[in-house]
Amino acid sequence: MRPYILVNVAVSADGKLSTRERRQVKISGTDDFARVDIIKSGADAIMVGIGTILADDPSLTVKSPERIADRLSTGRPEHPIRIIIDSKARTPPNAKILHKGPGKRIVAVSSAAPEERIAALSPHAEIISTGSEEVDLVVLMEKLGSQGIKRLMVEGGGTLIAGLFNAGLVDQLSMFIGNIIIGGSSAPTLADGPGWTQETDFTKLELMQIQQLDQGVQIDWRVRR
Amino acid sequence: MRPYILVNVAVSADGKLSTRERRQVKISGTDDFARVDIIKSGADAIMVGIGTILADDPSLTVKSPERIADRLSTGRPEHPIRIIIDSKARTPPNAKILHKGPGKRIVAVSSAAPEERIAALSPHAEIISTGSEEVDLVVLMEKLGSQGIKRLMVEGGGTLIAGLFNAGLVDQLSMFIGNIIIGGSSAPTLADGPGWTQETDFTKLELMQIQQLDQGVQIDWRVRR
Repeated sequence: MRPYILVNVAVSADGKLSTRERRQVKISGTDDFARVDIIKSGADAIMVGIGTILADDPSLTVKSPERIADRLSTGRPEHPIRIIIDSKARTPPNAKILHKGPGKRIVAVSSAAPEERIAALSPHAEIISTGSEEVDLVVLMEKLGSQGIKRLMVEGGGTLIAGLFNAGLVDQLSMFIGNIIIGGSSAPTLADGPGWTQETDFTKLELMQIQQLDQGVQIDWRVRR
Repeated sequence: MRPYILVNVAVSADGKLSTRERRQVKISGTDDFARVDIIKSGADAIMVGIGTILADDPSLTVKSPERIADRLSTGRPEHPIRIIIDSKARTPPNAKILHKGPGKRIVAVSSAAPEERIAALSPHAEIISTGSEEVDLVVLMEKLGSQGIKRLMVEGGGTLIAGLFNAGLVDQLSMFIGNIIIGGSSAPTLADGPGWTQETDFTKLELMQIQQLDQGVQIDWRVRR
């Protein structure tokens, strides 16, 4: 059985994840950082796409020492398993996510990933290969479920998230909407890719809760089946 | 003095105004339609960009007979003045906005607008020309203010709204966020154009209110000066 998949993003009021140059900007504040860290520390694994690795070089560790202690005291590893969706194995072998903090990493590749790049990543991560040109997200999620991953948090970017919506794999969307306008017709949004054109293909959501947080708005949506 | 400028938009949960084909889709519901009609009937003028005219051919009339009666009983025209930002005068002379319902129309053009197109629109609308290649929004707003327009509602699209933010002309942003994912890296968002890359250039907002409405979320932001 595949994991419960929660997508978590912070967007500007005009729906952008970052500037058109893909430079990450501060969208939320300390209360939202704490909220995200709580979700992260409650997850078995955390996932990002290769675009986010190349643009931001995140480590995706749990930040709060208390929450790390809580994970350890309940027999869980310090950090969730960190997973990169990386069809062509473009993750730099010195990427922070592969080195910062203890814990398991998975790089999900496709058959299109060159052998030498896989070999360079293998010392740092488990390699799971699915799909011919691109990672087969449905098959991958089944494999992750069979490894005992029950709760998966996805941190972006917009191409991976669109792929997950397209495959019907998202259970919950948690958004923080910040009090800035970034603008730009080519700036990344939370669901990029080709998009959908027919009403029947749009993902339908159900509002779970809204709250004011920091200087913005936090919204949780459940995906309707 | 320029008018108070309120931008009103409905976006999908992923921040899109329409599909990548610019086909308008149902994002909100009856409660939000009523909310928008109330804002519209309280405005002296309503403005859209030429992209919206070409894509949607809206009439931009007040819909509710009660609100029309209320406008008339207080000595106001049936509908707000309808204004198109149309640098090159591309508005089709048979566009609905020029013909549906009584009331004044303004087509705002630039010096780049061909004379014959202006001549074709002149029977249906007042023509105001500012700017050499594109409408000078700052100068235009001063002219509209001097015509007695105190409250202006902007209905989109994303290029016009980005231009207004860029010129520091937006006072309030009212958004309805609908419960669908439209997706698409090239689908229009509420602030398109080139966007901004530096924090100092981002428009900063202040939260006025949030509420659940229909099956989505309605947010009002005030622009910080």
